[in-house]
Amino acid sequence: MSNVEGAVVSHQEPERSSGYVQSLDRGLAVIRAFDAEHPRLTLSDVARRTGLTRAAARRFLHTLVDLGYVAADGRLFALRPRVLELGYAYLSSLGLPEIARPHLERLATAVGESASASVLDGSDITYVARVASRRIMSVDLGVGTRLPAYATSMGRVLLAGLPEDEVDAHLGDLAALTRYTITDRDQLFAELARVREQGWSIVDEELEEGLRSLAAPVRDRTGRVVAAVNVSTAARRGSATTMLAETLPHLLAAADAITSDLVANR
Amino acid sequence: MSNVEGAVVSHQEPERSSGYVQSLDRGLAVIRAFDAEHPRLTLSDVARRTGLTRAAARRFLHTLVDLGYVAADGRLFALRPRVLELGYAYLSSLGLPEIARPHLERLATAVGESASASVLDGSDITYVARVASRRIMSVDLGVGTRLPAYATSMGRVLLAGLPEDEVDAHLGDLAALTRYTITDRDQLFAELARVREQGWSIVDEELEEGLRSLAAPVRDRTGRVVAAVNVSTAARRGSATTMLAETLPHLLAAADAITSDLVANR
Repeated sequence: MSNVEGAVVSHQEPERSSGYVQSLDRGLAVIRAFDAEHPRLTLSDVARRTGLTRAAARRFLHTLVDLGYVAADGRLFALRPRVLELGYAYLSSLGLPEIARPHLERLATAVGESASASVLDGSDITYVARVASRRIMSVDLGVGTRLPAYATSMGRVLLAGLPEDEVDAHLGDLAALTRYTITDRDQLFAELARVREQGWSIVDEELEEGLRSLAAPVRDRTGRVVAAVNVSTAARRGSATTMLAETLPHLLAAADAITSDLVANR
Repeated sequence: MSNVEGAVVSHQEPERSSGYVQSLDRGLAVIRAFDAEHPRLTLSDVARRTGLTRAAARRFLHTLVDLGYVAADGRLFALRPRVLELGYAYLSSLGLPEIARPHLERLATAVGESASASVLDGSDITYVARVASRRIMSVDLGVGTRLPAYATSMGRVLLAGLPEDEVDAHLGDLAALTRYTITDRDQLFAELARVREQGWSIVDEELEEGLRSLAAPVRDRTGRVVAAVNVSTAARRGSATTMLAETLPHLLAAADAITSDLVANR
């Protein structure tokens, strides 16, 4: 969630295989230290944001400079376009973003809010496509952003699409992100049952105060939920009831259109 | 150019700093081994595509599995959405793709061909945004694709935008990619002077036989060329003259509109 909160870069520390290559782990952390809010960093910035010593940070930065992934300009370092080789290989193999984007454009125009698509990855959702609305106060979440599945509308759609016995494996700690977040496992499972039944999810200020989001599932030819699309808005712009009345029909139509294109494409 | 030609993954081998971290280099090569044509690879595939031993490939793959970047499904490995943390940090920091995309959409619709934007990175251009046309036979180049600047219309626009004494540093080997490629340095400089003068570039079957492309510059508030946009088409769909008459006005309008939005945004 470093993109959202500008927090220090961190990553999961699962149990490690024998032969674990720590240098790769650390080098990737150096790449992740750069983001939209921190496009240019000094050696000290990188050391601080990764928890590496200055000496180690220097070795990784200079290796990335040699490989063409990082540019050095005086004391400042920045990522170079070559890093697109790393994440985009995955994205292009999905096909989903290309298929979803025109539908998200139409959806965002129709409802005047930002529209996004995401997939489930462990206990997080990851944005794979996003079309921002033209409003100044739009929510600023780029592709690649990760958010906890349990507290987001797209996450609940994706969790509700799993066989029930697989849901637990995709739940991390149910932390209270706001005073509205569902943190009780049974209450969350009841909410997921409702989402499964009604075919969409609304999450009102559970991820962040002031933020409301509505999501619907995208399915493959077997009916399995493979992605979710959503529309997010500032809660102060109207009631949840208004959002359902005005936005839900457009959202469901977009999700169905993406499903149709995905099925036709495979 | 592995995305385009499906060739074995390789990278530049420049002079290396002391303290070079070879494990990082090798680990990144393993990530690059996966692309849209090779989304799922066996251990042997990865070893072959990276030039690593099977033992080394196994260590890097398992480290990437531990870090959440690679999923293992039986004998097959695939990238996971988390890799978007790596390349997208750069892309979101640029701002350019978000700004360019709606203009590229309009351009692609107006001319019925694919439209793209790219930036210069060393002697290559790197695609940062792309809108594919709805034609079946569209040229298949995703964001992150790298192509040699000297033989592409966007590359010539970007090279022509440099101070003349900086161009040489951005020229690699001027290889004959087709029988039409300009491979003579003086001839290329004459062509760049023409591009600088007329404000656009057309490249006809110099990168690939059958492929024609037309590009124009995007500038920052100081007038410096910071990106290029293009329209590419199959040469058999019409003459270069027809492309100039029908496509150039739309392309120049799109490039100017992106320039205006970029200047307004900074």
